[in-house]
Amino acid sequence: MSQMRKDVFTGRWVMVADTNAVHPSSFRVKPFQRDSAFCPFCESNEASTPPEVFAIRRAGSRANGPGWSVRVVPNSHPQLGIEGDLGRQAEGIHDLMNGIGAHEIIVETPGHDRGLHELQPEEIVEVLRAYVTRITDLEQDKRMRYVLVFKNHGEGAGAHTIFHPISQLMALPVTPRNIKTKLIMARDYYRGKERCLYCDVLRQELDSNQRLVAENTDFVAFTPFASRFPFEICVLPRAHNSAFSRISASEMENLAHILRDVLQKLDSTLGQIPYNLSLQDRPFVRPRKDYWETIEADFHWHLEILPQVARITGFEWASGFFYNPVPPEIAARCLASSRAA
Amino acid sequence: MSQMRKDVFTGRWVMVADTNAVHPSSFRVKPFQRDSAFCPFCESNEASTPPEVFAIRRAGSRANGPGWSVRVVPNSHPQLGIEGDLGRQAEGIHDLMNGIGAHEIIVETPGHDRGLHELQPEEIVEVLRAYVTRITDLEQDKRMRYVLVFKNHGEGAGAHTIFHPISQLMALPVTPRNIKTKLIMARDYYRGKERCLYCDVLRQELDSNQRLVAENTDFVAFTPFASRFPFEICVLPRAHNSAFSRISASEMENLAHILRDVLQKLDSTLGQIPYNLSLQDRPFVRPRKDYWETIEADFHWHLEILPQVARITGFEWASGFFYNPVPPEIAARCLASSRAA
Repeated sequence: MSQMRKDVFTGRWVMVADTNAVHPSSFRVKPFQRDSAFCPFCESNEASTPPEVFAIRRAGSRANGPGWSVRVVPNSHPQLGIEGDLGRQAEGIHDLMNGIGAHEIIVETPGHDRGLHELQPEEIVEVLRAYVTRITDLEQDKRMRYVLVFKNHGEGAGAHTIFHPISQLMALPVTPRNIKTKLIMARDYYRGKERCLYCDVLRQELDSNQRLVAENTDFVAFTPFASRFPFEICVLPRAHNSAFSRISASEMENLAHILRDVLQKLDSTLGQIPYNLSLQDRPFVRPRKDYWETIEADFHWHLEILPQVARITGFEWASGFFYNPVPPEIAARCLASSRAA
Repeated sequence: MSQMRKDVFTGRWVMVADTNAVHPSSFRVKPFQRDSAFCPFCESNEASTPPEVFAIRRAGSRANGPGWSVRVVPNSHPQLGIEGDLGRQAEGIHDLMNGIGAHEIIVETPGHDRGLHELQPEEIVEVLRAYVTRITDLEQDKRMRYVLVFKNHGEGAGAHTIFHPISQLMALPVTPRNIKTKLIMARDYYRGKERCLYCDVLRQELDSNQRLVAENTDFVAFTPFASRFPFEICVLPRAHNSAFSRISASEMENLAHILRDVLQKLDSTLGQIPYNLSLQDRPFVRPRKDYWETIEADFHWHLEILPQVARITGFEWASGFFYNPVPPEIAARCLASSRAA
C-alpha cells in the first residue's frame, strides 16, 4: 500500500508508492540530442547575444569577445522588461502590474558539449560565483523582491533546443508562491520551537541515514521525505544561512563538488535524464516588508533538483498533489551506491 | 511588455505576455494516435477490468457484460487502497498516513474512437450522472475528505497509451492543496464582503465581455484573468452552489452542452490538443471539520480545462509561478469565434 506523506516545508501531501521493485533502467530515456547547428552561446559567437552583463574572463580579454569561462547575458526574448515602473492597478476585482524584471542567461562554459555535471569543480565554482554576483547586483534594484535561479537540462525539462549548458536567472517584483509558502511554514515552525525547520530536518536525515545521497564538510544531499518526483534531491548547507549570496569561499567549493557528484550519480543511475535545478533562496529584505523580518532565523537556502522522468497529469494539475512512484529511500539507495566519475 | 496578474482565487501571480501576434496554428501538435490494439474499456471486453462499481445500462443487460453506455470500474493499478485505516503517525518531524482511498475509471462510452467532445449531449449527461453517483456514494466513507474527478486527454496531458475516452476519480483522505488554497481565498473574500468571490467574478466577466468563450442559461465559460496555461478555460455555474453533486437535471443538460461546445472550440482552434479537465468541487463537510463550516456560502464549484500546449520548465517548478504566452483575452477571442460542430 502506498503512503501519504506531508511535506514539512509546504504542508503539501504526497502519495508515495510502497515498493522495492524499482528498476532505474525503466526510467531511461533516449539521449538528449547534442545538436551541431550554430549556437549563440559558444565562444567566438558573442556578437549573437545582447552585450554581456557579467563575465569571468582571462586577463587581457575584452568584453563581448572570446576569452571567458562563464558569461551572463540578457535573454534576447525576455519574459520581463527591465525598464519602467510597476504600475500596480486594479481591473475590477483583479490585481495587475507591469512585468518588470530581469531575465538573464548564465552561459556555464564556452564549449558546447559538456553538461554542468561534466565540468570540473573549479569550473562549477565560477558558475556559482556568477550566480552570487548577479543576485548581489540585482538586489540593488528597489523594484525587485526576488531572484530566481534555475536550470532546465534536457528536452523533457523544457530546455532550449540548443544543448549548450546554461542556467537562467529572473529578477522578480514579487516573491514566488512556492517560496512564500516555504517561508510561512518555516516561520511558523520557528515560532513554536525557536529552531530552524531545515536545521532540524538536516539533523534527522543525518541520524536516520535513510535518504542520504552524498555529503561533505559543508553540504548534505538527500531525497526529501515527501519527494514529489522520482529521484528528487535536496542539497542543504550544514550551516544555517538564509541567503545564498552570503556563501563562503570554502562552501562554494564544496557546493561545486557535491553538485557535480549528485548530477553524476543521477546520470549514472538514470542515463541522460532531463532535470530541473533551482536555487531556493530567501527574498530580498526591504524596509516596510516587515512581514519577513524574522527571515534570517526562519529560512535556510537550498537547492532543489527535480528529474523529469514522469509525466504530470490532470491529477497533479487539479490537486497540487503529486504521485511519486519511487519511494525516496529507494531512490537514495540507488543514487548513493552509484558510481560518480 | 508583459503583465503580472494576480489570480484572485489562489493569490498566485502570473506573467502574461502582451501580444496580439498569437497564431493558434503554432500550437498545433501531431494528432493523437487512435491505436487499434486490444482495449480493456471497449464493450464486450468487460472481463478485462475489475468488476464494475456503477454503470448506466440498457434494461435487461447484466452487470459486467455488454449493454452499457457509461461504466465505472476500479483502476486495476490503483494509487490508493480502499481497505484499512489511515494510521496517522509521525516519523520524527514528518507526518505520514496510509494511502487509503478509491481510484476509479469512468469509461465515458462503450466505443473506442470518439472523444468526449465527439459524444452527443445526452451521452455527456450520462458521464456527468456517473460523476454525481460516485461522489455521492464515496461521501458515505467517513475516512474520505475529497473526491477528485479529472480527465487526461491526449499523450501530452499524461493520458493512457489507450485512446478510449475515460475520466478518473480519486477519493482522498485529505483535501488537496490547490482546493484548500481556493477555499481559504474564497472564505477570506466572503468574510470581507458577504458575497461569493466566484459570483462576483462571474458578474464582472459578463459585464466586461472580454474573456467569454461560451454561455447558456445555466453556465458561463471564460478564460480566467490570470490563466496559467494558453487557452485555459473555466466553466462556472451561474447559480451559487458549493457542491457539484447537488447539480439539477436542467443544469446537467446545460453543462453537457457547454462542455461539448467548449471542447469542440478547443479542437477546432488548436487541433487535437492534449488537455486536462478537472472538477473543482468542495470537500466533504464532516463533523469536527468546522474549519469549513462556512463553505456553503464561500465556495462555488467549477470546471478547469487546461490545454497542454507549452512545456513546464524549471521556472514553474521552482516558483509555482507560470508564464503564459497567450493573453486570455486573445485566447477567448480565438475560441469564441471558432466554429463548434
